[in-house]
Amino acid sequence: MSDPFGPRQDRLLAALDERGLGAMLVTGSANVRYLTGYIGSNGIAVIGAGGRVLITDSRYAVSAAEQVRGAEVVVGRRDLLADVAAAAPAIAAGRPLGIEADDLTLARHERLVEMLPGVEMTPTRSLVEELREVKDDAEIATMREAAAVVDRALASVLEHGLIGRTERDVAFALHGAMLAEGAQEPSFATIVASGPRGARPHHVPGPDPVPADTLVVIDMGAVVDGYCSDMTRTVATGPLPARLAEIYAVCLDAQEAALAAAAPGMTGADLDAVARARIAAAGYGECFGHGLGHGVGLVIHERPGVRPESSDALRAGMAITIEPGIYLEGEAGVRIEDLIVLGEGGGQLLSHTSKQLMTVA
Amino acid sequence: MSDPFGPRQDRLLAALDERGLGAMLVTGSANVRYLTGYIGSNGIAVIGAGGRVLITDSRYAVSAAEQVRGAEVVVGRRDLLADVAAAAPAIAAGRPLGIEADDLTLARHERLVEMLPGVEMTPTRSLVEELREVKDDAEIATMREAAAVVDRALASVLEHGLIGRTERDVAFALHGAMLAEGAQEPSFATIVASGPRGARPHHVPGPDPVPADTLVVIDMGAVVDGYCSDMTRTVATGPLPARLAEIYAVCLDAQEAALAAAAPGMTGADLDAVARARIAAAGYGECFGHGLGHGVGLVIHERPGVRPESSDALRAGMAITIEPGIYLEGEAGVRIEDLIVLGEGGGQLLSHTSKQLMTVA
Repeated sequence: MSDPFGPRQDRLLAALDERGLGAMLVTGSANVRYLTGYIGSNGIAVIGAGGRVLITDSRYAVSAAEQVRGAEVVVGRRDLLADVAAAAPAIAAGRPLGIEADDLTLARHERLVEMLPGVEMTPTRSLVEELREVKDDAEIATMREAAAVVDRALASVLEHGLIGRTERDVAFALHGAMLAEGAQEPSFATIVASGPRGARPHHVPGPDPVPADTLVVIDMGAVVDGYCSDMTRTVATGPLPARLAEIYAVCLDAQEAALAAAAPGMTGADLDAVARARIAAAGYGECFGHGLGHGVGLVIHERPGVRPESSDALRAGMAITIEPGIYLEGEAGVRIEDLIVLGEGGGQLLSHTSKQLMTVA
Repeated sequence: MSDPFGPRQDRLLAALDERGLGAMLVTGSANVRYLTGYIGSNGIAVIGAGGRVLITDSRYAVSAAEQVRGAEVVVGRRDLLADVAAAAPAIAAGRPLGIEADDLTLARHERLVEMLPGVEMTPTRSLVEELREVKDDAEIATMREAAAVVDRALASVLEHGLIGRTERDVAFALHGAMLAEGAQEPSFATIVASGPRGARPHHVPGPDPVPADTLVVIDMGAVVDGYCSDMTRTVATGPLPARLAEIYAVCLDAQEAALAAAAPGMTGADLDAVARARIAAAGYGECFGHGLGHGVGLVIHERPGVRPESSDALRAGMAITIEPGIYLEGEAGVRIEDLIVLGEGGGQLLSHTSKQLMTVA
């Protein structure tokens, strides 16, 4: 397989050129990985008309040589910034150096300003993040596997039942099952939120046992080869009160409406509105307090945004979640989430676990 | 148990006062947790003479109310900065506002400058991090449990042998065993580095099977209630070539010498020199390319530094690692690491796994 890094760097150079920049100082770790293949915890890339380097320290010399393609590996001192300052002027070739305003700290910026007195530095926003929005076939194949890990892990844990187990135990079992199925790690801390705790979208699983005859929200994701997946299912632990059965049906209807509508050319706000209108029409508009979804890739929450205020354009090849929820404070909650890839014909599911209401005792 | 957050905030106020600052804008997540108890992913604390607030968004309203002590919880908009800007001037009470130069990004700083035209902002370094260096009894008890999780997890995995298992499988088994023993998550990606791969201190475990008759470096840590542990053991997979037996003995001697010497009043450099001198005297000085250790707490690598250039003063109550290593490129490596707490009488071990050379086939 040809390596994707050279062409990604070429796309970055074109974006730099449009902005009058000679080079980009890439400090965000997912951006560095995306552009060069470097996986360690201490790497900075400088990509420009005058050269392409990945600067790391001696701990990563051997692994960086194996990982990095399309850029020269420079082994510098632990702090990296002095080596960055030594390399950057020639790479920028007299034009301004782009820096990542959403990653670079004040302290690092101050040091760079001191060490690069003649170099103009231009803060940029989301420049590499925008390149990452549309996934290539290899990225999609990896995310498909990360989603399949979650499908298998959830099925294996639900076989052992839920009622009476603590939320914490269920979350740990899901974490372990994802590892057993081939995940490097979870892509975020697994959420298991049962009964009234389900009304908190970001509940941290604790010592509470899962009760009978209510809903349990399970939100989980796996990392495979650096790429994340994300899926939520809500299951019943017995016959449900009518109102909980109703919110499940409303949420599923909204989720499927958004799945059916998702297509290139919409904005994130357009797609959010599809699900939100269904939930509002059913009388639960006030109970859906978060956005419909988000992009997923090397980072669990990345561009594009799929929420009421998002003007991000949806394009073919983007991987996004669709995850409406309805939360009844003091009672229970429901959220149903799939990870999809947008194609010309609509969305393609990466998550395959059934969404028919399951009862797990 | 009385909550520790009010007193920690009091210590911060004293440090601010010394620097002529009216308040501190605390954005680093470990610092926010340390000062207020807030555990979620989106919280900023503003602590000053004129008030103490923790600002988060509606997703965390319920959990923040349960977690936070000593500060008022303000539920703001997702972005938080507008709410920070609304609260900060009254809290700083006309004096400069400290900001965290090692955490605040250029983009956030720019927005704050726009929104706080009349407020002077002063970049600070390591201000809260220094308060975190010395642990209290409750923190030490938690870290002791995090270390015990690692002792138990390593023992349970080694029972199943090593030879022929892939490094990746062993690392996943250790990860799963830590969860089973009560960890929330590993405190970093577990390292299993066998044979020649052991010469890379930060090796990422891969598909290589663990060979017989060599050394295997296993570096692992667990998180319990937010606090990290860190331990490395190197085991043999059969009779060793004389040179590998020798580097094990030299490394152990250096590690025990540093453990015996560790005491308040030294600098990080002083303690590093104890182990480094032993290794150099044995002729392996060039093969120990990293620092002797580091502080551990809410973050796996925190202050103080224990390395040749560290002037950080070691004080009673600090939790640090002591982890010399000897790496023979192309051959094998050894590293032996304990987590200790410094007391007036010296270091107290939190890790308890034996350091006598174990053979695991």
